[in-house]
Amino acid sequence: MRSAFYISDGTAITAEVFGHALLSLFTIEFNHVTVPFVETVEQAEEVVRKISESFRDTGERPLVFYTIVNTEIRKVVAKSVGINYNFLDQFVAPLEKVLGVPAKPEKHRTHSIHEKTYDIRIDAVNFALANDDGSNTKDYEQADIILVGVSRSGKTPTSLYLALQYGIKAANYPFTEDDMGDILKLPAVLRRFKHKLFGLTIEANRLHQIRSERRANSRYASLQQCRMELREVENLYRKEKIPCLNSTKYSIEEISAKILAQTGLQRRKY
Amino acid sequence: MRSAFYISDGTAITAEVFGHALLSLFTIEFNHVTVPFVETVEQAEEVVRKISESFRDTGERPLVFYTIVNTEIRKVVAKSVGINYNFLDQFVAPLEKVLGVPAKPEKHRTHSIHEKTYDIRIDAVNFALANDDGSNTKDYEQADIILVGVSRSGKTPTSLYLALQYGIKAANYPFTEDDMGDILKLPAVLRRFKHKLFGLTIEANRLHQIRSERRANSRYASLQQCRMELREVENLYRKEKIPCLNSTKYSIEEISAKILAQTGLQRRKY
Repeated sequence: MRSAFYISDGTAITAEVFGHALLSLFTIEFNHVTVPFVETVEQAEEVVRKISESFRDTGERPLVFYTIVNTEIRKVVAKSVGINYNFLDQFVAPLEKVLGVPAKPEKHRTHSIHEKTYDIRIDAVNFALANDDGSNTKDYEQADIILVGVSRSGKTPTSLYLALQYGIKAANYPFTEDDMGDILKLPAVLRRFKHKLFGLTIEANRLHQIRSERRANSRYASLQQCRMELREVENLYRKEKIPCLNSTKYSIEEISAKILAQTGLQRRKY
Repeated sequence: MRSAFYISDGTAITAEVFGHALLSLFTIEFNHVTVPFVETVEQAEEVVRKISESFRDTGERPLVFYTIVNTEIRKVVAKSVGINYNFLDQFVAPLEKVLGVPAKPEKHRTHSIHEKTYDIRIDAVNFALANDDGSNTKDYEQADIILVGVSRSGKTPTSLYLALQYGIKAANYPFTEDDMGDILKLPAVLRRFKHKLFGLTIEANRLHQIRSERRANSRYASLQQCRMELREVENLYRKEKIPCLNSTKYSIEEISAKILAQTGLQRRKY
């Protein structure tokens, strides 16, 4: 199997995202190897050896995606037997021309603690955890958004993703049978913050499947129960005009991006 | 201020990561605008209008980073007045030549629910939450790694990041004064899983600052207490030969990448 190397003097996240996006256009499988924090010439030479070994072992030249700020280290990696994708660099000179100022590469700027919204993101993660699953309803004043929905409709991972990636303070509140009674009404604790609510829903069959993995053959997981709960929340979203999204076919990355697009919520981190 | 647009018929995450990495090389501020899920020609024309407006309002041609699978939609965006960075496409033809097969673009493959390790990542997030902060010590058998350290040394956000990004099941256990007694010993519940432990530590001043934001003027936040706890855990790491990392200067992205590099832990998602 051909290897794909992702190399950087930082986390190599940028190299990975770019490389994956490119390789995902092909149906071939690759052996992925990430080498982050290549900070010395010796480490770079070690990586170059690994690339040579992979070529020798597989007979296929590895693909090498790299972002390296240090010129000396970059030159070493550029001499590997791999097929090099130094994908950022070729855009730098034209962009310097457009912007009329020279680039000032500094190591690790994009995924480092020095990134100016870092503390905001960590605060948001702590907020999401403290306000997960209706565990705390006292801090909704500070919430940017409150995700609502039935148990296992995707609220928690979405809250965490919104926090980690965008620095958005997302609380989440699960509608349970206790809230439903005869008919689901908006709990008083949520009514005050109605403008912050965003509803998730999901197809009954998918919910049944997810719940069955947790508690097989329980009433909680039964298709009938799933259908009933979803009908109730969807009626509520309609009645109260709560913006909502059916999460069935979407990843948390997609759900999060769609929530931002649909609500116009401003992210704190770009 | 010049605008930077990130446009896609998917989440636009790839466009954002690439664009940010490139723009972070410059010290200029930009007005960032992400437009995800551009799925029709009409939506594409709307984006093109927004780009024109930004040019008209600022007098500066916007930078436009895009990844669009649909040819028709891509053509519309490519005609905007912005400076276009269709950064993936130019690599496709050369890569097809290297690999000897044609690219098969499918929409949203990189950040979608169809990405094959998606369920693994969500399981890992649920595991991280259920095993956060020593709340549950019964499932360590299933853990890929158990992060240990004093309160507020970065264990929780790192566990979540490892889960979300890499599909790694990371539990975390906080050493508290109860564990310390006269001298900190490895709790029995951890000793069994010693091979899975990874220690975080942090500079006393930084810990004092973080804890003070939570509980100002408490003994918990005092510099003296922080110093004592850190001395104890660092002694323990040394004595028990637990691999460890000082997280003071690192983001959770960097801490996570360093943990993978240091332990050789295999990620489930690439």
